[in-house]
Amino acid sequence: MSNTFGRHFRLTTFGESHGSNIGLVIDGCPAGLVLDLGEIESEVARRRPGQSRLSSQRKESDLPEIISGVHDGITTGTPIAILIRNEDQRPKDYENLETVFRPSHADFTWHEKFGIRDHRGGGRSSARETANWVAAGSIAKQFIRQEAGILIEAWVDGVGSIRLKTKPETVDLSGENSSLVRCPDEQLAGEMAKEIELARAAGDSLGGTIACRAKNVPAGLGEPVFGKLHAELGRAMLTINAAKGFETGSGFGGSTMKGSEHNDEFYMEEGRVRTHTNHSGGIQGGISNGEEIFFRVAFKPVSTLSREQKTVNTAGEEIAIAAKGRHDPCVVPRAVPVVEAMAALVLADFLLAKRTNRI
Amino acid sequence: MSNTFGRHFRLTTFGESHGSNIGLVIDGCPAGLVLDLGEIESEVARRRPGQSRLSSQRKESDLPEIISGVHDGITTGTPIAILIRNEDQRPKDYENLETVFRPSHADFTWHEKFGIRDHRGGGRSSARETANWVAAGSIAKQFIRQEAGILIEAWVDGVGSIRLKTKPETVDLSGENSSLVRCPDEQLAGEMAKEIELARAAGDSLGGTIACRAKNVPAGLGEPVFGKLHAELGRAMLTINAAKGFETGSGFGGSTMKGSEHNDEFYMEEGRVRTHTNHSGGIQGGISNGEEIFFRVAFKPVSTLSREQKTVNTAGEEIAIAAKGRHDPCVVPRAVPVVEAMAALVLADFLLAKRTNRI
Amino acid sequence: MSNTFGRHFRLTTFGESHGSNIGLVIDGCPAGLVLDLGEIESEVARRRPGQSRLSSQRKESDLPEIISGVHDGITTGTPIAILIRNEDQRPKDYENLETVFRPSHADFTWHEKFGIRDHRGGGRSSARETANWVAAGSIAKQFIRQEAGILIEAWVDGVGSIRLKTKPETVDLSGENSSLVRCPDEQLAGEMAKEIELARAAGDSLGGTIACRAKNVPAGLGEPVFGKLHAELGRAMLTINAAKGFETGSGFGGSTMKGSEHNDEFYMEEGRVRTHTNHSGGIQGGISNGEEIFFRVAFKPVSTLSREQKTVNTAGEEIAIAAKGRHDPCVVPRAVPVVEAMAALVLADFLLAKRTNRI
Amino acid sequence: MSNTFGRHFRLTTFGESHGSNIGLVIDGCPAGLVLDLGEIESEVARRRPGQSRLSSQRKESDLPEIISGVHDGITTGTPIAILIRNEDQRPKDYENLETVFRPSHADFTWHEKFGIRDHRGGGRSSARETANWVAAGSIAKQFIRQEAGILIEAWVDGVGSIRLKTKPETVDLSGENSSLVRCPDEQLAGEMAKEIELARAAGDSLGGTIACRAKNVPAGLGEPVFGKLHAELGRAMLTINAAKGFETGSGFGGSTMKGSEHNDEFYMEEGRVRTHTNHSGGIQGGISNGEEIFFRVAFKPVSTLSREQKTVNTAGEEIAIAAKGRHDPCVVPRAVPVVEAMAALVLADFLLAKRTNRI
Repeated sequence: MSNTFGRHFRLTTFGESHGSNIGLVIDGCPAGLVLDLGEIESEVARRRPGQSRLSSQRKESDLPEIISGVHDGITTGTPIAILIRNEDQRPKDYENLETVFRPSHADFTWHEKFGIRDHRGGGRSSARETANWVAAGSIAKQFIRQEAGILIEAWVDGVGSIRLKTKPETVDLSGENSSLVRCPDEQLAGEMAKEIELARAAGDSLGGTIACRAKNVPAGLGEPVFGKLHAELGRAMLTINAAKGFETGSGFGGSTMKGSEHNDEFYMEEGRVRTHTNHSGGIQGGISNGEEIFFRVAFKPVSTLSREQKTVNTAGEEIAIAAKGRHDPCVVPRAVPVVEAMAALVLADFLLAKRTNRI
Repeated sequence: MSNTFGRHFRLTTFGESHGSNIGLVIDGCPAGLVLDLGEIESEVARRRPGQSRLSSQRKESDLPEIISGVHDGITTGTPIAILIRNEDQRPKDYENLETVFRPSHADFTWHEKFGIRDHRGGGRSSARETANWVAAGSIAKQFIRQEAGILIEAWVDGVGSIRLKTKPETVDLSGENSSLVRCPDEQLAGEMAKEIELARAAGDSLGGTIACRAKNVPAGLGEPVFGKLHAELGRAMLTINAAKGFETGSGFGGSTMKGSEHNDEFYMEEGRVRTHTNHSGGIQGGISNGEEIFFRVAFKPVSTLSREQKTVNTAGEEIAIAAKGRHDPCVVPRAVPVVEAMAALVLADFLLAKRTNRI
Repeated sequence: MSNTFGRHFRLTTFGESHGSNIGLVIDGCPAGLVLDLGEIESEVARRRPGQSRLSSQRKESDLPEIISGVHDGITTGTPIAILIRNEDQRPKDYENLETVFRPSHADFTWHEKFGIRDHRGGGRSSARETANWVAAGSIAKQFIRQEAGILIEAWVDGVGSIRLKTKPETVDLSGENSSLVRCPDEQLAGEMAKEIELARAAGDSLGGTIACRAKNVPAGLGEPVFGKLHAELGRAMLTINAAKGFETGSGFGGSTMKGSEHNDEFYMEEGRVRTHTNHSGGIQGGISNGEEIFFRVAFKPVSTLSREQKTVNTAGEEIAIAAKGRHDPCVVPRAVPVVEAMAALVLADFLLAKRTNRI
Repeated sequence: MSNTFGRHFRLTTFGESHGSNIGLVIDGCPAGLVLDLGEIESEVARRRPGQSRLSSQRKESDLPEIISGVHDGITTGTPIAILIRNEDQRPKDYENLETVFRPSHADFTWHEKFGIRDHRGGGRSSARETANWVAAGSIAKQFIRQEAGILIEAWVDGVGSIRLKTKPETVDLSGENSSLVRCPDEQLAGEMAKEIELARAAGDSLGGTIACRAKNVPAGLGEPVFGKLHAELGRAMLTINAAKGFETGSGFGGSTMKGSEHNDEFYMEEGRVRTHTNHSGGIQGGISNGEEIFFRVAFKPVSTLSREQKTVNTAGEEIAIAAKGRHDPCVVPRAVPVVEAMAALVLADFLLAKRTNRI
C-alpha cells in the first residue's frame, strides 16, 4: 500500500511532480458530509510555494478540481477524486539531473529500488506530493470537525537554533497566518526570518521543528496494541518529507523524569475524568483520554543547496553539483499545513474505526 | 487491524496477561526457512522479567510452543502459531483494581473505548504482550539474517539522567548481555543500576532511551511515499509500551544543523556508492541506502509505583492507590529485545515487499 | 492474507489437521456482545465427522476452548482466540502419503507452491480447518442476530442426481436437524441416504448442492463497486473445500430469462419498498434490498476414494493408490454448517462496515 | 476497500458515469514493465458501446490518458494513474430519474445505503465503470504475459436460450473479434444476433453466459485456505454488473458426478506432472496445477427496458417507467473484455504474491 494511507478513511495518491497533474482519491469518507470547497482551496494555498520571498519561487496556482464523489457540495459515499494541475512543468530544468545522485535526496535509493527513475523534479519524492495530502487533509479536517468538533493547530516552534519556549497549551495562534514563518511569537518569528534569509544568501538551508495540538478529541480513539493513536500519528509525521523525529506528550524530555513526576493524576471536573498534568499528551495506552493531544516533529534542513556539493553520478564518477535558480532555504513553515493534514487523516480514520468498537 | 502488524510478514497476537495463554500467528513467512528453535526461546528469555534483582519478580518460564507452520524445524508456508503459557496467573492480586483508573495507565482509556474492561493485569496493555512480539521477532530476525545477512542490535543509551555519549557506529556490544542494564559502557551501566535501585527504594520509577542499529540492510528497502522505512520503524517503536519519542539518523539534533553540514555526500568505494557521513541514518527518501540504519527511542518512566498516588475510580470518587509487591522501577533494559524484535518485523516485511518491486 | 478472512470482523486461522491444536483469532468483534458459549459448541458439533454411519469415523470431540477476548461471557473488544484440540492425530496413517500426489487433492499444488509439504492429513487443506470457521461463524451468527435479527439457514438441496425442487422461500426447515443428510424433504432425504450408502459400498463418492437463505438482512449491506455483497458471499462459498460453483437469486437459470420476466418490480407494503418477485436474491447492484437473500453452492464429489486410482508420486513414477479405512462418501451434509458460518462471517463484516457509511 | 481491488497489484477506481472523467490508479505494478499503450486503447475500445447496431448508442471515444507511473513507455514503480474522459455527459436525460427507483437497478439500494444518491446515469453502478477495469486489466494482461506467458481468452457461450456446446479447450477463437456477439460458432452467433434484435424490437433484454480460459498459468498460484485462486476469480466475476453465477471446472454439473469419474488422474508427460482430464479447471485445493484454467459466468438480462414497467418512487408512490432512447438489449458480448480484464487482475495479483512464498 505504498500509495494508500489509512484503513477506513483511505487516501490514495498519484502523480509525478512534473506530469500534467497530481491527484488523489479518498475512499471511505461517509456520505452526507457538507463540504466547504473554498476551505479546501485555501488549505492547499497555505502549502503553496512562492507565497513570500522566503520560499521557493515555483508558480503553482494549485486549484484542486473535484471530479467525483461530491454532488451539490455534499459527499455521496463514492470515492472523492481530486486533480491538481501542475502548471509549472519545466522538464528542461531537470535534464542535467538525469544521471546525478543528489546528496541526501532520494535519487540514489529510487535507483536502487526500482532500477528506473523519472528524474524530473524528484518524481513522487518531491514535496509537490504534499499538495495532495493537504487537499485530502482539508476534507478530513471538515469531517472530524463536523463529527466531533476536533480542531487541529500546528505551528513552527523552531528554525535552526531558534526555539520557542512557550508551552503548547498556552500558545496563542490567533496571528499565525500573518507570520511568514508561522511562528506565533512575533519577535522570534522575525529572528527566524532573518536566519532563513542569511541561509539563502549563503546558498545553504535550515531545518526546524513543528508543534501541533488537537483539541476536543473524544476519549477512546486509537487501538490498544497495534494501531496505537500516537504510533499512527508518529508514522504519519515521519511520512512528511525531511522529518527525522517525532515525540508526543513529554517525549524525549520525559525519559529523564521520575514516574512520580510524570504520572498524570486523575481528578473529577464537572462529572468528567480529567488529568491535572498532561505528560501523556492526551494519549494513554495508545488511546485518547480526552485531554489535548500534543506532539512535535523534527525536520532536517532541505537537501537542495545553491552552493556546490560533491557527489557521484550513475556512471560512478565523483562530480560536483549546485542547484540552479532560487532554492527554498527552509521548508518548515510550509510544512505546517502538511502536519495538520496528516494529523487530520489519522484522526478521521480513528473516528470511523470507533464506530465499530462496541455493540 | 488492531491486533495485526505488517503486510507481508504479518503478526497477529492474542491473549490477556492473565488468561491461560498468550499467543501469536505469523502469516506470510516464506516456506523453507530453517528455524533455530532454541534461538526463539533464548530471545524470549532475554525479555522475561525476574532476570535480576533490578526487575519485577513475576515468574514466567516463557517457553514458546510452536503448534503449526513448522515441520522438522523448517517453515512450511502455513501460519506459524505459537502459544506462551501464563504460569503466573494471580487474578486475586488484581481484584482491587477492578474499579480503579491507575494514573497514566490504560485503565481509563480502555473503559472509555470499549465500555467493558478485563481489569486483571492490564489485559492486553500489559507488557506481557511483548513476549509475543519477541517470539515473532526472533523468527523475523532469522529470516532477515538468512535472506540478507541483516543484523539488528539495540542497547540502553540512557536511564534517567545518565546518558551514553558514544556514537552508535562505534558502540561495542560484545559485552551487552553481561550487563544487567544492557548498556555497553560498563561504568555508566553501574551508575544506571544504582539509580534504578534508588528509584525502587523510593517506590518510584525511571525512564530512558534505547538506541538501535541495523547492519547489512540492502539498499532499496522501504516505500517512497507512504510506507517510508523510517516511518514504519517509528510506528513500530511507538507501539512499544511507554515509548514517547522516536528519532532516526540526526533526529531532533539534526533540525538545528545547516544543509551543508547535514547532507551526506556520496562517494565511490570499491564500486559501491557510499556516503562519508550518515546523518540520514541509512534511509533517504524513505528507502534504505545501504549504510547502517540507526534510530533512538524514548521511554517514559513506568506508571506503576509503590508510592501512593491520587486518582479516581469508576464511580467518580477521588481515591489514593499504591502498587502492592515489588514493582519494576525501570523497564528500559527489558525493552531492548522488544526494540530489536519490532525492527526485525518491519525489515522482514520490507524484504518480502522488495521482491515484488521490479520486473 | 491467505489465512485471514474479512476486513472488520476478521478471522485468522492456524493449525494443521494433525498438529496438537487448530485454532482461530477473531479481531474486530465489538465489545459487549453477550455470547452463548454452548451455542458455539453445538454449532461445531454439527460439523463434526462421525455423527452417523454416513460420514467418516474420525473421532473428534471438538470442544472449542476460548482463551482470550471474553470475560464473564461478554466480549471485551480484544481478540477472541479459540483452540480446538486434535484428539485424533494419527500421523502413522499418513506415512504412506508422504511421496504421493493424490488425484484431485492439493498434494501436488502445495508441493509446487511451497516446495515443502506437511503431508499428514492434508495439512491445512484438510476439511478439519472448517471446524475453525464454524466456531468463528457461530460468534458471527450471534453478533448478526443480536445486531439486526439476521437468521441464516442452509440445507442440502442435491446429492448426486437427486435434487430438491421446492423454492427456497417455501422450504420448511423445522425438521432439518433430524435428517442425516440435512435435506428438508423427508422422502428425498431417504433416497439421498441410500445413494450415499451405495457410493460408500462401491468405494466411490458423491457431490451435491447446498442452498442457503438469510432472513431479516437490512437494506444497505454491501459495497457498490468492489465488495459487492454477492461477490463476497460467492468468494466465501468458493473457499469451502470441494466447492465448484456459486449462484445467487436466479443464478445460471436467470441467464435464459428475459428482462421483462426477470426484473423485480417494486411496490409499497406498509410504507416499506418491497419487490413482488425476488430474482435478485435480495441483492441489487451489490447491496442488500431487504428481501430474503438466497444462494446455492455446488460441491464436487470428494477426492478420497477406497477404490484404486492411478496417479504419480514425487519421484515422477506412475503408481496406484486407494484410501485405507472408511472414507467419507459425501461431505455435503456436513458442509451445511460451514456454508452458514461463512455467510455469517460475510454479513457480520458488512454490518460493521455499514456503521461507517454515513455522517 | 469498496473501490480498491487486489492486494499486490491494486486497482483503485473513481468517477461517476456522468462526471468529467472516470479514472483509475494501479499501485504495485512492478517497475520496468514495457507497456504497449496502443494495446490498452484497443482493449478499452473492445468494451465501448456503439460498436454495432446490437448495442447501446452512447458515444464514448474512450481514450485512456496515462498521467503518471509510466516514463518513455516503461512503468516506473510509481502509481499508474489513467483518466478516461466522459464525452457523452447528458445529465438532462437523467433528470426524470432523480426520484425513481428503477426495477432491479441499484437506485433503491444506494438510497438505503448512503441516504443520498447521484442519480445521473447510475453513478458508479453504471457499466461505464468497467472501462476503468478494462484499461487496468490491459496492463495486468501485459504483465502476466511478459512475466509468465499467460494468455486469457473469453467468449460468449450463451445468449438467451441459445447455448454453445463446444468444450472449452477445443473452442477456436481465431475469428472471435469479427463476430458481433463474440461467439466463436459462426452459425450460433447469427442466431444470437437475431434473438438480440428481436428483444430490442420488443423493448426487452436478454442475459447469457461467458466462458473463459487461461493458458500457461504456472502451477502454484493461489492460496490454500483463504484466497483460493478460484474463490478470487469467482469474486472478481461476480463483481461484474449483472453477474449472477460463477462455476469453475466441472462446476454445477460436477456436483452430479461420481468421484471416480470426476477425479483428474495424474500422469507424467515429458517429465512434467499432468492430468488426463481437467474437471478441476486447472485449480486444486485453491492453487493452480499448471493445466488450463476454465470458468463460466452467468449474466441476468439487463434491467433497463424500453417497455413500460411498474415501480415506486422516492415518495413511495407506485408509478410506471420506460427507458427513453435506444436501450442495450444484451450486454453480454461487451462483457467479454471485462471478464478477461478481471481475470487478468486476479492472476497478476497472485503472480506477485507467488514471489514471496518461498525462501
